[in-house]
Order: sequence, then structure tokens, then C-alpha cells
Amino acid sequence: MLTCRGGIPPLTPNEAKAHLRQMANVLGRAGLDDAHRIERTFRFKNFAEAFAFVQRAADLAEAEGHHPDITFGWGYATVSLHTHKIKGLHENDFIMAAKLDRVVGA
Amino acid sequence: MLTCRGGIPPLTPNEAKAHLRQMANVLGRAGLDDAHRIERTFRFKNFAEAFAFVQRAADLAEAEGHHPDITFGWGYATVSLHTHKIKGLHENDFIMAAKLDRVVGA
Repeated sequence: MLTCRGGIPPLTPNEAKAHLRQMANVLGRAGLDDAHRIERTFRFKNFAEAFAFVQRAADLAEAEGHHPDITFGWGYATVSLHTHKIKGLHENDFIMAAKLDRVVGA
Repeated sequence: MLTCRGGIPPLTPNEAKAHLRQMANVLGRAGLDDAHRIERTFRFKNFAEAFAFVQRAADLAEAEGHHPDITFGWGYATVSLHTHKIKGLHENDFIMAAKLDRVVGA
């Protein structure tokens, strides 16, 4: 379970970028929307495979207590991570991004 | 299984609106984005309940052979329906909308 509470400042854009640099696995594939959220789209063969990934991502979200926004449909799933309580990026978002990469074997 | 093939024209905006008028259950709650897609957001108590709905919607999509785009996260799920092959609304989209309403008991 990742701990997360309000009242602490979000990562600054520079801190967020430093995290990205450190995480070679995320860098170059995840989009960083003005350092407020990490977003990544995964491609699949069809709807069923996209949903199978979504299901694993949802299980992971519940296990970690850290919940992304997920959009999916035929052949794709987009995971968007940020920490609602602080309206920005928290270290936990990068941990989740790395774990989601592992889910798809990326 | 709903049948759906390319090569037929999408519903015109007027036809789409007529469908909406006929379907009192959908009307007034579903957004109609310029008659190109039907979108509706459902609210839930938490992430798990939102995902439970998404799971039932995904099962329905596979059973019907008609696949919406779904966005969900903590406490909400938004279902967006349109028929990709005709880049617009097909009667099947309204059938799916009504069935999704039944899934949530709406």
C-alpha cells in the first residue's frame, strides 16, 4: 500500500523531471503533461486484450491504494496518473507507472 | 450480437435526435455530442464499484460485439458510444446505451 495524504506539496516540475530521468523504463514512453500527470497509452490486438490489461491495472490500483484514471476501448488503454489530493505528481505516481509497465511486460 | 458493418451512412443528426426522443430512458441524461457520440457518466462510491460497473459493461460489449470507449477512475465511469466504422451514431449505439442503463439499474 502506498501511503498518500493531503497537505504535502506536489513534486515541483523539476523534481518530476528528475524522477523521469532516473526512471529509464518510463522515460521516452510516458507523456508528461506539464508535470501534472503521467499518461501512457498501451496498444492491444482487440477489446478483450485491452480489457484484460485494464483488469490487471485495476487490481494493482486497489492493492496499492493508488488509483489512476483509465480510458480504454478497442485495441488501446490509456492510463493517466496523478495524485488528486495534491493536484499534481507524487513519487507514488512514478512507482505506479513502473509497476504498470511491468504488468504489460514493457 | 448486434450486426454492424461499414458502408452504410451514419444516422443523421435529426435521426439521432429522434432516437433520443423515443428513448425516454436515455433522454435527459445522456449527452449527445453534436450527434456524433452518446456519452454518459455514472457515479459510484469508490474505485471498486466503478470498476465493477466497467467489468459488466465490458462483458456486455463483448456479448453484443459493440465496443464503447470507457473512462473510469475513483467514483466514476464515463461510457462513450459511437460506431467507428461509420464515424457516427448507429441504432446499435442507442441499444447499447439502453442496455448499459439496465446494468446500473438506471
